[in-house]
Amino acid sequence: MIVRDRADTLTLLTTLRGSILLRVAPRLLAVFVLALGVTLAHAAYPLPRWPLATLPFTLLGLALSIFLGFRNSACYDRWWEGRRQWGALIAESRALIREVGALLPEDAALAHRLGGRIVAFAHLLRDHLRGEAGAGWEDWIAPAERDWLAGRQNRPDAALRRLSGELAALVAAGRLSDMLYRILAERIAAMTGIQAACERLRATPPPFTYSLLLHRTAWLFCIFLPFGFVQTLGLATPVVTVILAYAFFGLDALGDELEEPFALSQNALPLNAFVRTIEIGVLEALGAADLPPPLLPVDHVLT
Amino acid sequence: MIVRDRADTLTLLTTLRGSILLRVAPRLLAVFVLALGVTLAHAAYPLPRWPLATLPFTLLGLALSIFLGFRNSACYDRWWEGRRQWGALIAESRALIREVGALLPEDAALAHRLGGRIVAFAHLLRDHLRGEAGAGWEDWIAPAERDWLAGRQNRPDAALRRLSGELAALVAAGRLSDMLYRILAERIAAMTGIQAACERLRATPPPFTYSLLLHRTAWLFCIFLPFGFVQTLGLATPVVTVILAYAFFGLDALGDELEEPFALSQNALPLNAFVRTIEIGVLEALGAADLPPPLLPVDHVLT
Amino acid sequence: MIVRDRADTLTLLTTLRGSILLRVAPRLLAVFVLALGVTLAHAAYPLPRWPLATLPFTLLGLALSIFLGFRNSACYDRWWEGRRQWGALIAESRALIREVGALLPEDAALAHRLGGRIVAFAHLLRDHLRGEAGAGWEDWIAPAERDWLAGRQNRPDAALRRLSGELAALVAAGRLSDMLYRILAERIAAMTGIQAACERLRATPPPFTYSLLLHRTAWLFCIFLPFGFVQTLGLATPVVTVILAYAFFGLDALGDELEEPFALSQNALPLNAFVRTIEIGVLEALGAADLPPPLLPVDHVLT
Amino acid sequence: MIVRDRADTLTLLTTLRGSILLRVAPRLLAVFVLALGVTLAHAAYPLPRWPLATLPFTLLGLALSIFLGFRNSACYDRWWEGRRQWGALIAESRALIREVGALLPEDAALAHRLGGRIVAFAHLLRDHLRGEAGAGWEDWIAPAERDWLAGRQNRPDAALRRLSGELAALVAAGRLSDMLYRILAERIAAMTGIQAACERLRATPPPFTYSLLLHRTAWLFCIFLPFGFVQTLGLATPVVTVILAYAFFGLDALGDELEEPFALSQNALPLNAFVRTIEIGVLEALGAADLPPPLLPVDHVLT
Amino acid sequence: MIVRDRADTLTLLTTLRGSILLRVAPRLLAVFVLALGVTLAHAAYPLPRWPLATLPFTLLGLALSIFLGFRNSACYDRWWEGRRQWGALIAESRALIREVGALLPEDAALAHRLGGRIVAFAHLLRDHLRGEAGAGWEDWIAPAERDWLAGRQNRPDAALRRLSGELAALVAAGRLSDMLYRILAERIAAMTGIQAACERLRATPPPFTYSLLLHRTAWLFCIFLPFGFVQTLGLATPVVTVILAYAFFGLDALGDELEEPFALSQNALPLNAFVRTIEIGVLEALGAADLPPPLLPVDHVLT
Repeated sequence: MIVRDRADTLTLLTTLRGSILLRVAPRLLAVFVLALGVTLAHAAYPLPRWPLATLPFTLLGLALSIFLGFRNSACYDRWWEGRRQWGALIAESRALIREVGALLPEDAALAHRLGGRIVAFAHLLRDHLRGEAGAGWEDWIAPAERDWLAGRQNRPDAALRRLSGELAALVAAGRLSDMLYRILAERIAAMTGIQAACERLRATPPPFTYSLLLHRTAWLFCIFLPFGFVQTLGLATPVVTVILAYAFFGLDALGDELEEPFALSQNALPLNAFVRTIEIGVLEALGAADLPPPLLPVDHVLT
Repeated sequence: MIVRDRADTLTLLTTLRGSILLRVAPRLLAVFVLALGVTLAHAAYPLPRWPLATLPFTLLGLALSIFLGFRNSACYDRWWEGRRQWGALIAESRALIREVGALLPEDAALAHRLGGRIVAFAHLLRDHLRGEAGAGWEDWIAPAERDWLAGRQNRPDAALRRLSGELAALVAAGRLSDMLYRILAERIAAMTGIQAACERLRATPPPFTYSLLLHRTAWLFCIFLPFGFVQTLGLATPVVTVILAYAFFGLDALGDELEEPFALSQNALPLNAFVRTIEIGVLEALGAADLPPPLLPVDHVLT
Repeated sequence: MIVRDRADTLTLLTTLRGSILLRVAPRLLAVFVLALGVTLAHAAYPLPRWPLATLPFTLLGLALSIFLGFRNSACYDRWWEGRRQWGALIAESRALIREVGALLPEDAALAHRLGGRIVAFAHLLRDHLRGEAGAGWEDWIAPAERDWLAGRQNRPDAALRRLSGELAALVAAGRLSDMLYRILAERIAAMTGIQAACERLRATPPPFTYSLLLHRTAWLFCIFLPFGFVQTLGLATPVVTVILAYAFFGLDALGDELEEPFALSQNALPLNAFVRTIEIGVLEALGAADLPPPLLPVDHVLT
Repeated sequence: MIVRDRADTLTLLTTLRGSILLRVAPRLLAVFVLALGVTLAHAAYPLPRWPLATLPFTLLGLALSIFLGFRNSACYDRWWEGRRQWGALIAESRALIREVGALLPEDAALAHRLGGRIVAFAHLLRDHLRGEAGAGWEDWIAPAERDWLAGRQNRPDAALRRLSGELAALVAAGRLSDMLYRILAERIAAMTGIQAACERLRATPPPFTYSLLLHRTAWLFCIFLPFGFVQTLGLATPVVTVILAYAFFGLDALGDELEEPFALSQNALPLNAFVRTIEIGVLEALGAADLPPPLLPVDHVLT
Repeated sequence: MIVRDRADTLTLLTTLRGSILLRVAPRLLAVFVLALGVTLAHAAYPLPRWPLATLPFTLLGLALSIFLGFRNSACYDRWWEGRRQWGALIAESRALIREVGALLPEDAALAHRLGGRIVAFAHLLRDHLRGEAGAGWEDWIAPAERDWLAGRQNRPDAALRRLSGELAALVAAGRLSDMLYRILAERIAAMTGIQAACERLRATPPPFTYSLLLHRTAWLFCIFLPFGFVQTLGLATPVVTVILAYAFFGLDALGDELEEPFALSQNALPLNAFVRTIEIGVLEALGAADLPPPLLPVDHVLT
């Protein structure tokens, strides 16, 4: 995620960091070359039937705007739901460790073990979503359990099973009542729900056919633009074409980025920072003396 | 569901797999032929009153874009809700088998029986939604129960009744407390809710009248387009008409596909893959040694 | 609700069943006559100042499209929420009868009595929403209770009170624990919520003023259309005017229908079919030998 | 709330009741006078540079339509959420009195006392939201409690505290188990949530700046309209300007009304009717012989 | 938050308080100067190829309107969610103190301690969200606990841990049953959720890239406007350009403000007033004789 203070206008207009410009530059270049060719050809052979009328452009531009607007809205909703799920995970992890501390105040080792599994779940979920084989979770799990966990296909879910298992053993041992177990079990069930929701966002992008239809329509639109402009705009055609292409391709490309909220692109969600927030919350609840610092953006990017 | 890596621009512009092009090809051809006829007729008899003014096209194109945008949004919401319901089913099945393992750790046969019913529910729900007589569920149910289940009209619900019945018997037998039963019963109630929500999506498409109004308006629009273009576009009329028809008919046809998220079309949801995910989750929770592999797309299509 | 297979293009273009055409025909005729008059008057007295400029039409058409789009979206949401509420009722009735069967397996008469009240609630709610004095509920209630129930002002709520009362009596008698009562009480509370939500949809349409503003703007727009078209479209004016009026009046009329999801119009929800689904679900859970068949559409309409 | 049967077209076009026309009449008159002045001035001094081009109007009209559409959608959502909250209150009051009757069937005086507090809460919430010092609640509260309640700043919340207090006393006295108390407490917690949500709707309108920006843009737009029309529309300018101003100002004014769902305007919610519905529901559950009639609209307006 | 009665039209048109005008004034000035330059240059050198055609403006204006509309909608949703979270906090604090009073009626000191922590949580959350080191919370916490709380990194969460801890100690001491603890624990869990949701709104603005793309497109649009107007509007160009720039820049700037609902800008949420509402609610529930007055707007601004 890109983190910037509200920049002054000059910075806003000149910064490249966070701009979609670099990403769509090849497309803009292609459109520019095409528009230049059309302009020169028109200057050389100004046939009276060359220009297209404005009507098809208005109609196609209108439809394209509405559909791009819809796709962007859908992609933003995905991105924001990813954020909401991780926000919920932060809340659930705090609530769970808080209740553990309140209900089982006498057993610090138990609290540390449970807290460690909560943090490990966050690490494992991030690695799972990003398809990485991170090792950050290992520090939070007792050595004896590490190998078992590493051998599971669905590691975050396995961590939750261990969490439930240990709490249920307390119930069987009479150290925790059914009702209090239920309070904790609800938190863990919510974590399972969060995991499944995140997997859903990662595994199911908006229908490919939709993106395809939009990409193609955007290309067709930008390719035909110079033909519509050249008669009235003359030599300004390439510049104006590129400006319009920037708006449409830019929005299209931004949709592509927001579509994958758990990727590693500049606009993806800073899962590392969220995991750190969870670490801090659990450690502070456990009464740790030293808390790790929150993650800070590097060169305006928080990962 | 079509699964593709983010393709380069060339692939995006040329791929047919996942394109809506084949589906709307007949309509595009019809519009092309019509536009060609109009163009030739106009070339032969260039009556001064032939062309229509641009105003009606702008007005109709505007209205059509907004209404198509709305319908697409509604259809996408249906598709995405279908996905959310199956994501919730994945979460509920994991949470249920996790709690069974935690609360009833001593009885492996019971856990296998309950786990089998969870998986069978997913199989049966998929078959129910797709109107298929699949047999994948049978491997997960004890032979004695198979015939009974096969004879039920609403098989997935019957599977849940058995699940509840066996758990309630544990309560009656004093092996499970009321409160712990409740934790499990909530998961099963959620599954009932998921089933009813999926049935709703399958049985109640957006109002037929709405689709009808849109189809007709789209047809009227595309049929009149060449009359509006021919005066200014001349011989380019058929091509430009087809491009616009591609955008409008394409979006309309895509809405048709997304409208039925549980069908077997290319853009429908990969229920088989979801069922497999549930199988893996249950089997891993049961401690199975061999897990079946996740389903992979075949020729870029996941079913 | 109109039920049709995905029709071929020809059927789509010619069917009247489900079309909004008949409903808006009088308005289209009025607009046609007006446009014809304008066209003839213009042919007779082609005053140079006759035509209106295109700007007001573009502006009004734009605003009208956006507002109609909004209203349609709001009406569709109402319709879909009605469907969701009934889908939830199907789920709640299945969950309730499933839990009754699981928790009170020994008392078949009790299960039948409770199941009968669940079905009766669905019947009574439908009658309540449609303002009908249906008698379908009577078969599901013991004769002794029928008169009492018939004398209540809010019959569905009274049926739920009896349901709660009988279950609470089991608690008082020690046959059902508090906790298990709670599981059942949650289902009944959900049914109360569903009833209130359905009453809300029936009793509170979108603000009348909003519909009024839209109707009037649509009328003004269609009345002025021929004045804007006649100069450029000539004799085609009446036809083109009617096409545009069809799109705008059609969407307006469709909004009127979706606004009342529990009415008896073609596009309203098939409450009878939903009630039958609930009957089947309860009867199968009670182990009935003969299940009534699902309701089928008659002449493509499901009620 | 205005209650009308689906009126025929003539009524729709002529009714003033429920129309926004009276409210925006002064603005329409101002615009009309301005447009008349512009028209006459142009007739007297038809300077060639007088008219504005259409481009700025199209651009501003487009932006204004989209922004008005958004604001209207936001205001409608507020209005509808207000309705949903009161619908939920109706459900909660029925569920609470139903459970009271089921769980505490032997103590009619208690049920009447609790039921009275439920109804009083509805009265007090309505008065609180409308800023009125109504006395309707007094009949539902025992005299001894009236003074205390009247002295509270937040009366509805105080009524709920008494409700909770009496139920908790039953728990302390061993007449109600913890679990059954919880069932009732959930209903009361929901009522607290409903109150806070209604207060939110009343106290926090959409940002004033937003309304301001829209009002000003709408005024600027309507003031400039005649300059854009006069060259092509001639003497029709004032009429056409007023029609457009009617659509834009009308929508703006309607948004103003929907913004405050608990006010006493024609389009506000009929809180009195909702309170009566709650009264009827509670009284019928208490077995009252005479039920008050539902409130009916007076001159098509339900308050 | 700006609080104004519904102002008359004159006030609406002239007020600066709450207007976005001051904020966008520099940008409007820049655009005005540019437009003036273009106008003068065109008057001096009226080259026939100077003006741009209208098509690019229509296309870009259309796209910009739709995208600005979307961004505004997203920002408004953030603002409104912030309000909803604080409304929920008001509800939760009232429900929690109500249940404490009902379930633990005998121990006034305990109720005061718990109530104090609830209010302190609201203070600490506000300070946390605004990044301020407020001291308002200290009055609500016993001196012995103040230092500990001041030393926590996440103070609001620490306050909740103390709340849970004290309640759990009552359970351990047998003064509160498990089930009644659960009722209170649900309220506290909701508060944890509210905190995480507010942190999410504060820490994660809409993607920077999105704002950047919009800002740049808006600038490009406004810079090119005079070139499109000058040929037809002549000397009116600067004025008309500024009007359009006001609408677009104004909406853009308003989005910037709504994006940060917890900031201290004029349109941000009045967190101080919400905290006071919570104070009043808790104090009245505790039976305090003197209640502090609700916060009132100062110069029409409520903070």
